Amino acid sequence: MIIQMNQNAMPDEIKNVEKMIEEAGYSVHPIYGTNLTVLAAVGDERGKEGLYDRMVSQPGVDKVEYILPPYKLVAREIQKGIIRPDSVIDFQFEWKEGTKSIQIGGSDFVVMAGPCSVENREQVLESARFAKKYGACCLRGGAFKPRTSPYSFQGLEEEGLKLLAEARYEHGLAVVTELMDAHHLELVDQYADIIQIGARNMQNFMLLKSLGSTQKPIMLKRGMSSTLEEWLMSAEYILSQGNNHVILCERGIRTFETQYRNVLDLNAVPALKKLTHLPVLVDPSHGTGHADLVAPMSLAAAAAGAYGIMVEVHPEPSKAFSDGKQSLDEERFKHLMKILPPVVHAVGMRTSWNS
Amino acid sequence: MIIQMNQNAMPDEIKNVEKMIEEAGYSVHPIYGTNLTVLAAVGDERGKEGLYDRMVSQPGVDKVEYILPPYKLVAREIQKGIIRPDSVIDFQFEWKEGTKSIQIGGSDFVVMAGPCSVENREQVLESARFAKKYGACCLRGGAFKPRTSPYSFQGLEEEGLKLLAEARYEHGLAVVTELMDAHHLELVDQYADIIQIGARNMQNFMLLKSLGSTQKPIMLKRGMSSTLEEWLMSAEYILSQGNNHVILCERGIRTFETQYRNVLDLNAVPALKKLTHLPVLVDPSHGTGHADLVAPMSLAAAAAGAYGIMVEVHPEPSKAFSDGKQSLDEERFKHLMKILPPVVHAVGMRTSWNS
Amino acid sequence: MIIQMNQNAMPDEIKNVEKMIEEAGYSVHPIYGTNLTVLAAVGDERGKEGLYDRMVSQPGVDKVEYILPPYKLVAREIQKGIIRPDSVIDFQFEWKEGTKSIQIGGSDFVVMAGPCSVENREQVLESARFAKKYGACCLRGGAFKPRTSPYSFQGLEEEGLKLLAEARYEHGLAVVTELMDAHHLELVDQYADIIQIGARNMQNFMLLKSLGSTQKPIMLKRGMSSTLEEWLMSAEYILSQGNNHVILCERGIRTFETQYRNVLDLNAVPALKKLTHLPVLVDPSHGTGHADLVAPMSLAAAAAGAYGIMVEVHPEPSKAFSDGKQSLDEERFKHLMKILPPVVHAVGMRTSWNS
Amino acid sequence: MIIQMNQNAMPDEIKNVEKMIEEAGYSVHPIYGTNLTVLAAVGDERGKEGLYDRMVSQPGVDKVEYILPPYKLVAREIQKGIIRPDSVIDFQFEWKEGTKSIQIGGSDFVVMAGPCSVENREQVLESARFAKKYGACCLRGGAFKPRTSPYSFQGLEEEGLKLLAEARYEHGLAVVTELMDAHHLELVDQYADIIQIGARNMQNFMLLKSLGSTQKPIMLKRGMSSTLEEWLMSAEYILSQGNNHVILCERGIRTFETQYRNVLDLNAVPALKKLTHLPVLVDPSHGTGHADLVAPMSLAAAAAGAYGIMVEVHPEPSKAFSDGKQSLDEERFKHLMKILPPVVHAVGMRTSWNS
Repeated sequence: MIIQMNQNAMPDEIKNVEKMIEEAGYSVHPIYGTNLTVLAAVGDERGKEGLYDRMVSQPGVDKVEYILPPYKLVAREIQKGIIRPDSVIDFQFEWKEGTKSIQIGGSDFVVMAGPCSVENREQVLESARFAKKYGACCLRGGAFKPRTSPYSFQGLEEEGLKLLAEARYEHGLAVVTELMDAHHLELVDQYADIIQIGARNMQNFMLLKSLGSTQKPIMLKRGMSSTLEEWLMSAEYILSQGNNHVILCERGIRTFETQYRNVLDLNAVPALKKLTHLPVLVDPSHGTGHADLVAPMSLAAAAAGAYGIMVEVHPEPSKAFSDGKQSLDEERFKHLMKILPPVVHAVGMRTSWNS
Repeated sequence: MIIQMNQNAMPDEIKNVEKMIEEAGYSVHPIYGTNLTVLAAVGDERGKEGLYDRMVSQPGVDKVEYILPPYKLVAREIQKGIIRPDSVIDFQFEWKEGTKSIQIGGSDFVVMAGPCSVENREQVLESARFAKKYGACCLRGGAFKPRTSPYSFQGLEEEGLKLLAEARYEHGLAVVTELMDAHHLELVDQYADIIQIGARNMQNFMLLKSLGSTQKPIMLKRGMSSTLEEWLMSAEYILSQGNNHVILCERGIRTFETQYRNVLDLNAVPALKKLTHLPVLVDPSHGTGHADLVAPMSLAAAAAGAYGIMVEVHPEPSKAFSDGKQSLDEERFKHLMKILPPVVHAVGMRTSWNS
Repeated sequence: MIIQMNQNAMPDEIKNVEKMIEEAGYSVHPIYGTNLTVLAAVGDERGKEGLYDRMVSQPGVDKVEYILPPYKLVAREIQKGIIRPDSVIDFQFEWKEGTKSIQIGGSDFVVMAGPCSVENREQVLESARFAKKYGACCLRGGAFKPRTSPYSFQGLEEEGLKLLAEARYEHGLAVVTELMDAHHLELVDQYADIIQIGARNMQNFMLLKSLGSTQKPIMLKRGMSSTLEEWLMSAEYILSQGNNHVILCERGIRTFETQYRNVLDLNAVPALKKLTHLPVLVDPSHGTGHADLVAPMSLAAAAAGAYGIMVEVHPEPSKAFSDGKQSLDEERFKHLMKILPPVVHAVGMRTSWNS
Repeated sequence: MIIQMNQNAMPDEIKNVEKMIEEAGYSVHPIYGTNLTVLAAVGDERGKEGLYDRMVSQPGVDKVEYILPPYKLVAREIQKGIIRPDSVIDFQFEWKEGTKSIQIGGSDFVVMAGPCSVENREQVLESARFAKKYGACCLRGGAFKPRTSPYSFQGLEEEGLKLLAEARYEHGLAVVTELMDAHHLELVDQYADIIQIGARNMQNFMLLKSLGSTQKPIMLKRGMSSTLEEWLMSAEYILSQGNNHVILCERGIRTFETQYRNVLDLNAVPALKKLTHLPVLVDPSHGTGHADLVAPMSLAAAAAGAYGIMVEVHPEPSKAFSDGKQSLDEERFKHLMKILPPVVHAVGMRTSWNS
């Protein structure tokens, strides 16, 4: 930790901070400069988070910086030179033809596809049919929907979960679906293969804490104006509760631009690979908000090094209850799955489907 | 609703949209221009939110705009020329000397003060003592704390609520405290006079929906990158569940600037007064993140027309478990309460304390 | 300067950096931690800017931070404990009744008013008449206009400057007008009392460098997404060329919010007062984009500690060539000037007009 | 144009606006709704930009929206159904072995490489040597440098231009260099093959207007918080002055994220392809600020459909006067040029070099 005193810090204030550093189990390296004093607290910072909170509010302190990142379980580097390898999220599920395995973060590029909201049986089964046909391995679909307006469609809830499970059984696709409240965890856990935490809940800490009671993979979407550090701290919540199976999903950030719904931040993909061992997916549907932009941004995500994408599809986007504007119909999805493999292969990953 | 077709929309696509408009109970006013077609859907838009979602995804549609705002219960204007007066949130509580009434949104400027987190008995009682002494009417304090890091102090929970209640009884201050999860509502409701929904939960829709089961005033903080419209939609969730006692609290937005924690957006104060009948408060502590900026921004909030402020105070900011950097000690709070009344009076509001 | 090596920095890389620090005239204080090495370069950083640029790109370096701000002439603090007093920008001009003095940054709150663009003689003289009548001391008006569209009105150029000069002579208001190109400096200098550098040119470094050839006060507006540090560095350009008469003007920043044109960032007012000795004004017209928000945000600016405001007025906003939506007509300006003094006086400044 | 009156607009105000619409040569289509009135102005909007400015400030008007975009020369669509094909920027230059042709926006993916600043002869020639060797067709290098600090290296000016010209002659690379001031145009024009307008000057309208006096290709970088529309309006300035040879270059936008210098906005690539016929390049060096992120984001740019990239290279990044942190050395550039072709070919473009 580097503690920079302000230029007018009094000798007493400096002494006080030095004492606190030592009491916390660090050694102090004071640097008395021409204009000001900097105190370096040397030692392992991990587990001393409370100190940071107190340090910033000591009299005479101008700023405090961590040297090591404040997350530890999700960090790529355990300590100097000891690097964690990529986490591969590996799970199985049953369908009518037997058991299937999926790996996220391995050598296969994964595609998750499905409607924004589960609307009815035909819609889900039909989406699943063509998602599967062209190469998706997972079916996404919301049964609980976080909607800006209380007057918008809020989801089919358990009925929706059942329809997803039926589609899984029929088409052999793992189910990815959103959990919005800790008290639905048991219910969602029964039906989902991957539990999604949406952007608006990335800092719903009660919800994050509840996830330790399952070992299902969790797909944690980035909050719409969250920094990478905040996002990783939210992942740290989940790991610190005992569930290590976390997948990160970049889904666009909020900026001043109005031509698209969000700015899909692909910088995050290579940057996260350096910061964390967790696998990173990309959602170009929410990331752009326009069906026209989904295919080019899917290719870009693959080229940037993502382990997969999650895209919204719908048999008839013009009849979707939500997000129809950004959903691909069968033709468009087929086209995407045809142009994607050459790019995936160009960056050295594999696809389980033929383009 | 104004539906703008794209320049290459086909006659069939236009017809399809016209039909949908009529089926929804609007009359259609098509405007066939030189370059493109615009369809105006005339009629009352309220209650037709599902249509918007479908309209944006019709083939040939370029964009759809509401003419009326999508919120109705929180809107200032009910319909053409019918304006709702300011909502005044009026409530009572008991303390050792009897019953007290508080009005938020009336002619008195209110000051809420207290520590970020409830830490222990002395800290709460001492904060309450000086908050009261210099003119605050409400005591803020977090018993459940949303913290970015799982390793930071998470709050004293029920024990904290009890300490707040004790301070209320002793000092005659109403208690404002945060609710983070719907399943703590019953508990928090027992102790709080005003239930705070924090910035990170502004779009925790499950939590918002739960608030219909109480009639306690709700203080809804703005999400850190929420638009005014999203914020008002979140308030609409609460009103639509049957609780009309909502107070809005501006607490700063996230931008590129790094000199302060957030940019306190005072534009929101006069802008919200035009858009909604709900009262608006300002939190200059989170809005700036620096104790030095709290006093000038409190004055600015009052001058901009806020109905009150919420500030963080602490008997010893340098020992605070959280947010010490932005907390005022007794001296600084006393000073703020001394310089605030002249500005409040200058804009025609009253203060219940003498400066 | 604090140089943080990355965790895997090689001994050679550390040695190389240490050597560079010493060659630059600093002394090195290495801190060899458990996990990584931090090198503190102790000594006066000023005048060593080139080193920063090179340091960040050394192999093994993770990040470099200034301890002192990179600006020196505009900084509030010269060195430890030596604080510059507020700069007062003081100038005189002639009009038909003699000589007038204006001070910006002193005890009088100043109001600059005038149209966005100079359109014609009547408009300028009429704006000047009522600006003066209600208390403004300066007349703003653009003769060279930076317009987003090449098809929008671009300004009357020299003819516009002459009209401003005529209004000055007639009404006794100092002229504030924008300079867009270094090669118009001589021309603009003939007519202006204060030369404005607009938000879009805040980092037009060629233009900034040219300002050393005049001693006229310069009003430097904040770029629309500039940090305070960048803004102060732009001011530093002007001072470093030999013109110390710089006034800063906050005019709103760009965010995701669409209800107003910009978010007027009043945090900047008290924050800048700590960082610099230069006076700060506020432009609530561009800062909000709506005439309705100008009055409350003007009051807020005064309460936050600004030394004055610059507002757009127009005899007939509905006929303005530009920015009519945010311009005040005579009635509204009169009202503003009536409600402003109580707030100004409440924060201890004076007004030269009666409300 | 769609003019939405506010809910309380008076009949007189509506009549006034209708009259203005007609006088401007549009036909009026009023839509008198239950709650408010909308006036559609039908007819060709182009050339009526002044009207927009006046319309927004009429009494009773709530908002005004263009139906067609405000730019016309750069727009993809001339009018309903008439689509401009991609512009290909085609130019020639001389070097020691003869004449070379370059096409930007055609079927070949172009790579521009070179140092941030021209520092000395060896650095430029060496950068050019390896840029050429691995496949670049253009050499970038700044002779005039826009620097945040007045104390940073400001560029070698004409001497730098001469060194670039020498490198062109020697290595057969076209020269791309920045113009910062209209009054250097003649000078820069002598040496440059492509004139770059930097992000900070994207709205330096005097500079943009001056570009009509050359027919050299102009590479216009996006301002750091510019919308696509503003960017296209700046391109429109250049075309409207008679120079059609404009290349757009995305270089990252400013957001709240601090892990990277900017967020490279690749959404802009496919979005611009729909909005304009001008070719789009991507600068992943400024777009990310980290050499480590340049390769993955270059691949992503190609996959998203960019016509090429511009990257910073330096023989010894650790000795660079500026931007060393984001510069590639020979090894890294070689690696990039090796992994790029498979992705470029995967999206159907060609490379002139072998990987």
